[in-house]
Amino acid sequence: MTDHIVKILEGTKVPFRNNVDYCIGTGRMGLALHKEYMAQLALVQDAIGFSYIRGHGLFSDDMALCRGYKDENGEPRIEYNFTYIDMVMDNYLALGIRPFLELGFMPSALASGEQTVFYWKGNVTPPRDYEQWKDLIKALLSHLIERYGREEVLTWPVEVWNEPNLAGFWKDADMDEYFRLYGHSAHAVKEVDERLRVGGPAICGVDDQRWLRMFLEYVRDHKLPLDFVTRHHYTIEPPRRAGHYAYAKLHDVEESFEVLEASRRIVDGYPEFAGMDIHITEFNTAYIPDCPLHDTNLNAAFIATLLSRLGDSHASYSYWTFGDVFEEKDVPFTPFHGGFGLVANGGIPKPTFWTFAFFKELEGACVHRDSRAIIVKTAAGAYRGVLWNADTAYTGESVTVSVELPGAEGEYFLVTRTVDEETCNPLKLWHDMGEPSHLMPGQLALLKEHARPLVTSKTLMSEDGELSFDLVLKPNAVVYFELSEVVRKSDRGYSYERVIQGEN
Amino acid sequence: MTDHIVKILEGTKVPFRNNVDYCIGTGRMGLALHKEYMAQLALVQDAIGFSYIRGHGLFSDDMALCRGYKDENGEPRIEYNFTYIDMVMDNYLALGIRPFLELGFMPSALASGEQTVFYWKGNVTPPRDYEQWKDLIKALLSHLIERYGREEVLTWPVEVWNEPNLAGFWKDADMDEYFRLYGHSAHAVKEVDERLRVGGPAICGVDDQRWLRMFLEYVRDHKLPLDFVTRHHYTIEPPRRAGHYAYAKLHDVEESFEVLEASRRIVDGYPEFAGMDIHITEFNTAYIPDCPLHDTNLNAAFIATLLSRLGDSHASYSYWTFGDVFEEKDVPFTPFHGGFGLVANGGIPKPTFWTFAFFKELEGACVHRDSRAIIVKTAAGAYRGVLWNADTAYTGESVTVSVELPGAEGEYFLVTRTVDEETCNPLKLWHDMGEPSHLMPGQLALLKEHARPLVTSKTLMSEDGELSFDLVLKPNAVVYFELSEVVRKSDRGYSYERVIQGEN
Amino acid sequence: MTDHIVKILEGTKVPFRNNVDYCIGTGRMGLALHKEYMAQLALVQDAIGFSYIRGHGLFSDDMALCRGYKDENGEPRIEYNFTYIDMVMDNYLALGIRPFLELGFMPSALASGEQTVFYWKGNVTPPRDYEQWKDLIKALLSHLIERYGREEVLTWPVEVWNEPNLAGFWKDADMDEYFRLYGHSAHAVKEVDERLRVGGPAICGVDDQRWLRMFLEYVRDHKLPLDFVTRHHYTIEPPRRAGHYAYAKLHDVEESFEVLEASRRIVDGYPEFAGMDIHITEFNTAYIPDCPLHDTNLNAAFIATLLSRLGDSHASYSYWTFGDVFEEKDVPFTPFHGGFGLVANGGIPKPTFWTFAFFKELEGACVHRDSRAIIVKTAAGAYRGVLWNADTAYTGESVTVSVELPGAEGEYFLVTRTVDEETCNPLKLWHDMGEPSHLMPGQLALLKEHARPLVTSKTLMSEDGELSFDLVLKPNAVVYFELSEVVRKSDRGYSYERVIQGEN
Amino acid sequence: MTDHIVKILEGTKVPFRNNVDYCIGTGRMGLALHKEYMAQLALVQDAIGFSYIRGHGLFSDDMALCRGYKDENGEPRIEYNFTYIDMVMDNYLALGIRPFLELGFMPSALASGEQTVFYWKGNVTPPRDYEQWKDLIKALLSHLIERYGREEVLTWPVEVWNEPNLAGFWKDADMDEYFRLYGHSAHAVKEVDERLRVGGPAICGVDDQRWLRMFLEYVRDHKLPLDFVTRHHYTIEPPRRAGHYAYAKLHDVEESFEVLEASRRIVDGYPEFAGMDIHITEFNTAYIPDCPLHDTNLNAAFIATLLSRLGDSHASYSYWTFGDVFEEKDVPFTPFHGGFGLVANGGIPKPTFWTFAFFKELEGACVHRDSRAIIVKTAAGAYRGVLWNADTAYTGESVTVSVELPGAEGEYFLVTRTVDEETCNPLKLWHDMGEPSHLMPGQLALLKEHARPLVTSKTLMSEDGELSFDLVLKPNAVVYFELSEVVRKSDRGYSYERVIQGEN
Repeated sequence: MTDHIVKILEGTKVPFRNNVDYCIGTGRMGLALHKEYMAQLALVQDAIGFSYIRGHGLFSDDMALCRGYKDENGEPRIEYNFTYIDMVMDNYLALGIRPFLELGFMPSALASGEQTVFYWKGNVTPPRDYEQWKDLIKALLSHLIERYGREEVLTWPVEVWNEPNLAGFWKDADMDEYFRLYGHSAHAVKEVDERLRVGGPAICGVDDQRWLRMFLEYVRDHKLPLDFVTRHHYTIEPPRRAGHYAYAKLHDVEESFEVLEASRRIVDGYPEFAGMDIHITEFNTAYIPDCPLHDTNLNAAFIATLLSRLGDSHASYSYWTFGDVFEEKDVPFTPFHGGFGLVANGGIPKPTFWTFAFFKELEGACVHRDSRAIIVKTAAGAYRGVLWNADTAYTGESVTVSVELPGAEGEYFLVTRTVDEETCNPLKLWHDMGEPSHLMPGQLALLKEHARPLVTSKTLMSEDGELSFDLVLKPNAVVYFELSEVVRKSDRGYSYERVIQGEN
Repeated sequence: MTDHIVKILEGTKVPFRNNVDYCIGTGRMGLALHKEYMAQLALVQDAIGFSYIRGHGLFSDDMALCRGYKDENGEPRIEYNFTYIDMVMDNYLALGIRPFLELGFMPSALASGEQTVFYWKGNVTPPRDYEQWKDLIKALLSHLIERYGREEVLTWPVEVWNEPNLAGFWKDADMDEYFRLYGHSAHAVKEVDERLRVGGPAICGVDDQRWLRMFLEYVRDHKLPLDFVTRHHYTIEPPRRAGHYAYAKLHDVEESFEVLEASRRIVDGYPEFAGMDIHITEFNTAYIPDCPLHDTNLNAAFIATLLSRLGDSHASYSYWTFGDVFEEKDVPFTPFHGGFGLVANGGIPKPTFWTFAFFKELEGACVHRDSRAIIVKTAAGAYRGVLWNADTAYTGESVTVSVELPGAEGEYFLVTRTVDEETCNPLKLWHDMGEPSHLMPGQLALLKEHARPLVTSKTLMSEDGELSFDLVLKPNAVVYFELSEVVRKSDRGYSYERVIQGEN
Repeated sequence: MTDHIVKILEGTKVPFRNNVDYCIGTGRMGLALHKEYMAQLALVQDAIGFSYIRGHGLFSDDMALCRGYKDENGEPRIEYNFTYIDMVMDNYLALGIRPFLELGFMPSALASGEQTVFYWKGNVTPPRDYEQWKDLIKALLSHLIERYGREEVLTWPVEVWNEPNLAGFWKDADMDEYFRLYGHSAHAVKEVDERLRVGGPAICGVDDQRWLRMFLEYVRDHKLPLDFVTRHHYTIEPPRRAGHYAYAKLHDVEESFEVLEASRRIVDGYPEFAGMDIHITEFNTAYIPDCPLHDTNLNAAFIATLLSRLGDSHASYSYWTFGDVFEEKDVPFTPFHGGFGLVANGGIPKPTFWTFAFFKELEGACVHRDSRAIIVKTAAGAYRGVLWNADTAYTGESVTVSVELPGAEGEYFLVTRTVDEETCNPLKLWHDMGEPSHLMPGQLALLKEHARPLVTSKTLMSEDGELSFDLVLKPNAVVYFELSEVVRKSDRGYSYERVIQGEN
Repeated sequence: MTDHIVKILEGTKVPFRNNVDYCIGTGRMGLALHKEYMAQLALVQDAIGFSYIRGHGLFSDDMALCRGYKDENGEPRIEYNFTYIDMVMDNYLALGIRPFLELGFMPSALASGEQTVFYWKGNVTPPRDYEQWKDLIKALLSHLIERYGREEVLTWPVEVWNEPNLAGFWKDADMDEYFRLYGHSAHAVKEVDERLRVGGPAICGVDDQRWLRMFLEYVRDHKLPLDFVTRHHYTIEPPRRAGHYAYAKLHDVEESFEVLEASRRIVDGYPEFAGMDIHITEFNTAYIPDCPLHDTNLNAAFIATLLSRLGDSHASYSYWTFGDVFEEKDVPFTPFHGGFGLVANGGIPKPTFWTFAFFKELEGACVHRDSRAIIVKTAAGAYRGVLWNADTAYTGESVTVSVELPGAEGEYFLVTRTVDEETCNPLKLWHDMGEPSHLMPGQLALLKEHARPLVTSKTLMSEDGELSFDLVLKPNAVVYFELSEVVRKSDRGYSYERVIQGEN
């Protein structure tokens, strides 16, 4: 039992830029046509409500956007088909979420090669002809503006490609070729409307510092448009595989932040780019879709640490991904297969779902932040906090956090919502059930009934002008609380004490 | 901490007739037109699913069923209007629930006097003319058969009036007059269709033994139709009022059952009626709609005792009532005003809601019953139980129940759903909020989020051919469990131990 | 076959203030708790979308707002209960409609007498004590502000009482007493917030000119707050009764407008009030809820005339009522009983429903108005019109309207939606069915399937720079059209001609 | 104007086996994961309600059912994944529709070659190893029985492969190889449960008579299980292509039936198979998914002829397909692209949708059938008929059908639902709009508002013991009528004549 004291001092100002609901990741666009995908996204939007969604494969063949054909003279031509694009965008907008457009991968009709990535075979080769590539971008953006309105589409950021510093995602990880792609793409975007925002290079953590420097210098030297910088962030040691799964350990969290700070310093080091928005367009613990870590309470607690600090240097940070309708490595065999999602297949919120839901509540001025707690004061005067314990996973110890509020007067209402390995741990419930590959309706209903926070409350009275209360964080716990003053107005004749004492 | 041991022996047969979902009570019929009423009933039907619903006021003026007018010659005439009757019955049937028809109260057009009951002024005087009364019954039943089909309506029981042994409900509690009413009513019902079932006398516990005997003898002597006997059952000491509320203590439970056994013995004492179905067409703890006891966890635990035994001597037992859209004593001022309902206004399940939901799961053969536990074995071989603790409300002690299952082999899955004062106590949450009369949307959402059982699970392994586990019952707890064998089929490469140990 | 030519000249500006969707009437507030009421209102809001709703009985006993009781010392006291008020307002706001508050009728707890109006017994006597009346108004408005927010409630107009110039609605039609009531009420409103808008005198057409003058002079002389003037407007000759129904003939429409113009002139005749908003807080053809005229296509066509002109002199005009859940004269016996509603019970739109839906589409600048047509040009350049024929009901003749559009070039798309006695006449379908009092599900479904406009379309090509087309108005027809330019982009290889000619 | 007289004689018995709702076709199974697909199927089920659904690609790679992998020793193994299979079957059953299982195409993991069919690349080569193929079938059926219950799955018919007589669907149209496939498949099915029904050969109209004979003889000679015979049926001349589309003429309808009769005679010619059920597991006019004929009213009228007679010789006939979420030839560019569906993308019913909805109403004994009308008498004594006119498409003439009913007495209610080129022709409306590739919300709403039958009614009185009425069939019309006796019960005081005559 470790003690941890939080003292909230009136007038303290603590840095905390909460952008938890800015953007969320998704598997390939084609899956956004799926019913189960939309049901999971609806669940996420209802409880958390992200503003943007970003995923791969907008241009991939299954979206049917771009096709080659021969005209009556036998000449090869390109034509566009927005049928599926529209269905996906309609679906998104109906749930109040907008696309953060990622330009890629390469339609077969434009591709220079046949290299693909993922089970669903996204083509990762450069275009044969950059004019066709530009036409594609312009045709898409123009169509979107026609359908959804210019003012609407101007709010949709555009990112060029995904992780070109990896040879799996961009043929040969060819830096020069990516810069060419970026230049043509950025120009195409601005030719549709100067006000559209475009960015890159969407790199992940392999040789990333060199890529970032070279990219910024290329942009600077070629006077290319650049409205924001993007990168990715994952936080595990190399995993080990067994059958369909891979197992991984978490990085040290401070080392993980240091990687990001290095990017921030690089960008700020160029006068042309100093202070420019950096969007982390993907982050998570593991970077593979079959790592059971994603399904755990540990993941939920660890992500809390990230959410409490990622806004310090970044405009946004997009968790990869909202749900488990996702196919990078084939279709999953079981509901708890270690997918990236906040939601497991069947519509079961995982513990990390609640970390996001809790951070979403943190509106107002931050009054406290440390390694296991963040607290804000709302405009209405209530205190809201999230506390977590990612440290004692393997000792089994709980941490007691004492919150002290000097200057409090009168009666208060404390409500807590607890997600820990006992109260909200669908992975364990599924394990206890026997790890069924296919959930029967009763099993699914039970998992959903379980997979939510325990809500408890207390009436607190200040003593000597001070209020204090303890919150116990079991291993891998994430706890939300809200503390607000009570104006009690009991109805004529009502006495709660008399009720619970069973008097007559 | 009291110990309590439950040993489940193979082959044991324990009496338990579970008819928890047969019938539920409701306020006056006119309220069944309300949106909030139907929303609460939908919630109840979704989670519990009763077969029948019984309430007052089918014939009362607000249902507009029966009106007097003068024809072109100035002669007084009676006409019928089924507009609201149909809306109510359509509403019920759409939720899969059928009416248990209670004939009453008296339409003004037929009444012999002006005495009324309740805020909503149900006329409780005999008809001026029994032929008109019979016509009314026949017109209604004939209309229902025309609209809903004969086979359907034949499944709807018919009860004559409500609590005629109370002067408030039947002018002067005039026994002879009630018997006349019963006779005419029963004949009218059978004139529509011999197969329709009719019963009475719907008495409650005042001078009830004499009423029951006299009623049965009257029926016998006059050769009246009688398909079932009905009575009511409440279990509190006289309450004391303060402002809008009344506070009450519970009866001793054994004394309470003795009252019922006396009725059973009376019925069985007449050869003509021995073994006849007795329907308890109303039961609850308090018999008033402003008794906060109804909203407590104690109520939930106490009702569990009743549900475990009421089927022994009764064909059914109908909890009064499903919801809090109810107006006997004016419109309630707050959501937790001590209404009869399983559901509080706004759609918040009260603890007793879950007692019913848990008993609903008890399908199969009873293998154990005692004063705080009942356990069945399902056709599929799982054990399901409900446990409760209504004894330690004022000591604060918990009771540990040890369940032992000799003859068990291998791996088992235990899931529990716990409703107690900490996990599911919306009354307390509302109190902690400051007892708001009018819930803001966020307050209502929080109450709903809280007002549900805590679900937890365990993997159990048998040892030496026996399985045992402990369940802790805090004061006023009601706990449901299901224990089933596990056939574990882990997917290729999946290791839960490796996941939770954070290995890679 | 009468001819009627409409020539739309570029640049013409025609007066037309379209406020069709400002306000709609409703039966007493207590019915807003009903499921069927809300279903009908949802239908209306979905298709038309009114901003405000006004009805009687906010203060009547069934709303339970105000009660007397005796305190512990036996002193009489007043207390307020907002349970039902909140349910009703929550229901309204959830459908995007706000209350136009009508203060009345008198709670029994405050009443000076026992005179009531309607089947539901609204007390129409003055308050015993005007301070209690003022307290009631202030308590209600303060509660509403607390629950819904000040900015929201400031948009809710407040009208004092209903038709005090009729002795049925206000004891003895006592003018002086009404003026006292108005004065106290208006002050009470402003004491809650100066910005709240208050008006009266809500008179209908009996001795209305004298009432209006005296009211304005009283307000002026006593320097009372007055933000708007209100009156009612019905347009039938005295009806004749038979059984449950009453039959009526329509007024001459010009005489009907003359009555309204007189009010406008009276108001404008006082310098203090010249130009002040007049809200017609009730209008319809018949003023009784059992007049079958309301259910006819003639009603729909006649109302079109009113909607085309009522905005000329009035800030708004509120059709009485949106639906047929309404109880002034008892509960209706059949679905087509001549209720006021736009929607019949069961959710069947009546023809007049579509008149409102069509007028709702008339956004933009009016380019033509005559006695059977009104046409606007939208911001996007399309023409939208409503045409009607209320003149040939008894001759059976159709009217052909020729619309000519000089200055048109190219291809146009004309779509029409027709409501007439053949295409959309649920009253006749119900009659043909045999006038069933209680609709079986198949009958209801058929009525709904029928009760909607026939939609047809045409491709029009301009000739010599002019476009013209004919629309045929059968007796009692209301026809909507939209005419817009077509930019045709046939897909590669698609030929509609080839399709319909069955070529291969 | 052609005349056509229908005389309904009491006691006439006319053959008509109405199995219109037995089965419906669908594109590949993988699309059943789509939201839009399910929305269209829900629409179809709501209005028509088919019992079974049959489509391709159950075993294709995108369903992820079957995969190869190497075990720890590097040995190749096969594993099964039911994740998507379950989602699809859950989706179907939730809409009350069951699969008519078509075994195919070949999973890559089992395939002997690489030949594929369709845009979505279904592998059409035989299995490398028939034991693996049998294992796959048995694994699937066993899983389905485990999940959905044995009694349920026993109702699901199983068909072996699709159109093996076409080289595009089965490598080289290799007859011997198909017979081997059939034999192994049929045995695998019966090894799971003898009661499962299996059939084939699912041929279409190329060399079909020889295939059918050889198949039956092979089955007979090898004593293979065979519970039913299947074939397909399309009714156009060879189409001509232009761009994305193909245009086709209809076959002569009698020649079309003759092809089917030939199959029937072949089957009946073998004593072992005489009278065996023949299921037409696909039928439509055109056999290509880009033939605009499918979207026309002509298609609706022509299909009526087929529906009136196909039951004579066949157990069922499955229209290909329910909706336009379908990808054989790439993703469609526009909503009206000539897809097979009863429903166009966006959820717009095509005219043929209503032909099915109308035939669905034909319950009871057939009393009349000719080349443009079919009439039944229901158990309740009403007459229901469907009439059609597929003959005058290119003359523009209407056909008047006079229906005569000798022996009628009293008052009758006639309701008609008309689908023709004026009342319900969404293709034309879309054309008039300018053939937009992507529907804006208002355009979609308008198309849906239009795409439904016009409902009209009449009161008919018999004269001299006979009733007669005329129905006018415009070109390509399909008209439904119901005629029933009226028992008129007007409410007290209600006079429809007085209403419409505007009396007071």
